[in-house]
Amino acid sequence: MTQVEVVTIGDELLLGFTVDTNAAHLARALAGIGMHIERRTTVGDDPAEIEHVVREALERSGAVITTGGLGPTSDDLTRQSIAGVFGRGMHLDEAHLAWMEERWRRRFDRPLPAANRQQAMIPDGAEKLENRHGSAPGIWLEDERGRWVAMLPGVPREMRGMLADTLLPRLVQRTTAGIVVRSTTLRTTGIGESALADQIDSMGGGPLGVSLAYLPSIAGVDLRLTVKDVPPAEADALLARAAARLRARVGQAMYGEDDADLAAVVLEACRTRKLTIAVAESCTGGLLGARLTAIPGSSDVVLGGVIAYANSVKRDLLGVREESLREHGAVSEPVVREMAAGARRVTGASVGLAITGVAGPSGGTPDKPVGTVWIAADVEGAVEARLHKLWGDRDEIRQRAAQWTMELLRQRLRA
Amino acid sequence: MTQVEVVTIGDELLLGFTVDTNAAHLARALAGIGMHIERRTTVGDDPAEIEHVVREALERSGAVITTGGLGPTSDDLTRQSIAGVFGRGMHLDEAHLAWMEERWRRRFDRPLPAANRQQAMIPDGAEKLENRHGSAPGIWLEDERGRWVAMLPGVPREMRGMLADTLLPRLVQRTTAGIVVRSTTLRTTGIGESALADQIDSMGGGPLGVSLAYLPSIAGVDLRLTVKDVPPAEADALLARAAARLRARVGQAMYGEDDADLAAVVLEACRTRKLTIAVAESCTGGLLGARLTAIPGSSDVVLGGVIAYANSVKRDLLGVREESLREHGAVSEPVVREMAAGARRVTGASVGLAITGVAGPSGGTPDKPVGTVWIAADVEGAVEARLHKLWGDRDEIRQRAAQWTMELLRQRLRA
Repeated sequence: MTQVEVVTIGDELLLGFTVDTNAAHLARALAGIGMHIERRTTVGDDPAEIEHVVREALERSGAVITTGGLGPTSDDLTRQSIAGVFGRGMHLDEAHLAWMEERWRRRFDRPLPAANRQQAMIPDGAEKLENRHGSAPGIWLEDERGRWVAMLPGVPREMRGMLADTLLPRLVQRTTAGIVVRSTTLRTTGIGESALADQIDSMGGGPLGVSLAYLPSIAGVDLRLTVKDVPPAEADALLARAAARLRARVGQAMYGEDDADLAAVVLEACRTRKLTIAVAESCTGGLLGARLTAIPGSSDVVLGGVIAYANSVKRDLLGVREESLREHGAVSEPVVREMAAGARRVTGASVGLAITGVAGPSGGTPDKPVGTVWIAADVEGAVEARLHKLWGDRDEIRQRAAQWTMELLRQRLRA
Repeated sequence: MTQVEVVTIGDELLLGFTVDTNAAHLARALAGIGMHIERRTTVGDDPAEIEHVVREALERSGAVITTGGLGPTSDDLTRQSIAGVFGRGMHLDEAHLAWMEERWRRRFDRPLPAANRQQAMIPDGAEKLENRHGSAPGIWLEDERGRWVAMLPGVPREMRGMLADTLLPRLVQRTTAGIVVRSTTLRTTGIGESALADQIDSMGGGPLGVSLAYLPSIAGVDLRLTVKDVPPAEADALLARAAARLRARVGQAMYGEDDADLAAVVLEACRTRKLTIAVAESCTGGLLGARLTAIPGSSDVVLGGVIAYANSVKRDLLGVREESLREHGAVSEPVVREMAAGARRVTGASVGLAITGVAGPSGGTPDKPVGTVWIAADVEGAVEARLHKLWGDRDEIRQRAAQWTMELLRQRLRA
């Protein structure tokens, strides 16, 4: 199994102005070709620190991927710092400069900004990694012992494009080992980490034979099964056996595997049954609609719906009765039922999904504290409503409310 | 200025199953009390690796904060690994065990799961850091030379709570230096990084006297100004002077400072003018509504709106004319104008915001390629529409569309 270290570079990462999403993306992509990230280090835009950290990582693993610091501004110092690790100088790459000038003329109809010229400076003896999504080339530096550093841009779009187009194919060619890391993730929702752990720990039939990690998030708890250092066929068999045992034990709460998104699962269930969906959202303000329509191709299932944040909109656009609002309040079972039914009626959809709740931080009462959320699913006229007491901050409560509403529909359609 | 290193722990981070949002949050919170993260390292759930990395970080900086690995499952190994760094044993904290048992009875109405017992094991000589948001205590370990490690949970909610409630106050007490890091961020939207850099580089009046970083994201480009190692009053003066010069130069594109969210800026502008907002969303499917209602207290401005994903919903709920849809297509200026006007009309709001576009990956045509997005703002009957050619993947295009629509309203209200 091939080890690699990752160094992410940028003051913005250390100062917390940017969340490092590249690191997670890189890890998943590398795992897919049997490479494992052993350590990840983040440093600021400090040439001495970059050089020091990359040198150490290279000594430990012989294989380092960096992200960031290839941009056009004066705090982009990766190229020259890592040239220093290899004892190399820098030179202007005329071909790349010409390409950038042409690109600016063609795409932006103006001359190349002076600041971008430094993006054509590359270390002596380096190979460029093509960037189809931006102006900075990636850089591959390798020494006579075969130890290498690949420098990728920090902008997620450019990093992902270059990784897929250029770096992964190159790494696959270098990797000759028949030994891999394989993993499967079983995604659950509606059950806590400890309860899940208790159920699984009390499961008979001996050890699983794979390593098991619990990964809680707003979407639920993922169970990640991993097998290392065995040949691919054996790894697959071990994973399949362990997954089957877990599925038998906690299958009810399981909505998919690996990258599965509950929104996509629910859309596919509707597609199969030729159902269409409309939403009626109060406290989530459009989040459920946004989750569903984030899935490419959702337009054959999702018609749309109503964001009924104000009571007047619940009444005027969804037909919620004034009486229900007055007698039970906006966060109540009668209102959520009428919202779900209204979403169906006004759009002509076969399924209406509704959410009304107290997302906080204010607005809670002793009767209906922050986190009180009513959800409902009207499937072709049969309405089911549920009360949830969700925890977390405003954002978490809203996200969980959207997740539970999709889960309610999934359960209804499974029956 | 006080340096600290951060070590984030968890296979899920290295394998990319979780994005490390804790690191960014920690950085911002620590900067606020004048502490600076010099390096961040991420390791898996491997006791030897945890011990090794924490030992090195402690030797470099004398101050280390870890997140993760305090949970109830068998891959939670932080406590014992770091006890090893300090050469300490472990013991059962009876008081904490009793507290957890009581908590489970009270909150979940069931006995403490066996798996959670290990959360009451703490290193000898450690102090507990109270966790009001979960069951694992944080841990503070310090040696006779005053070098310390603070262990926080990995679950973001618990980490943030413990940091604010317990760790930050403790660190403020220890910090006696009058020397700080101060930074200000000026947030811009609608202008690219290179164009911004060119404008700023060509600005007269000598050096800014502060360090300047460009931080591009989907929301726009942030300009971060930082001053280090000077007394607080001087730092503030330097920042204020530099910020004023930048504002004079690129102020048009600037919507706020530091944590400012364009949604909050727009809501506040409406609140001042006693305007209410309704949305009409096609390709964004609720994202704009979700962005606006993510801001606490948005209910006095946002009434709601219509998610008009299908053309039938545009027609039936927003009154978009069949003729406009047929002659110009759903992604067109006439349709976006009618959507914005319709959102106002059906909800009674004073402002209607509308978005219709091709978010991709499919659905593009030579005339209207992926990224073609029409947006409109109807402010009390005066409609302004704009065509944007956005780049990125489906998610980025949708997010940018929501951002540009809020920016359009901001510009309208500033005039």
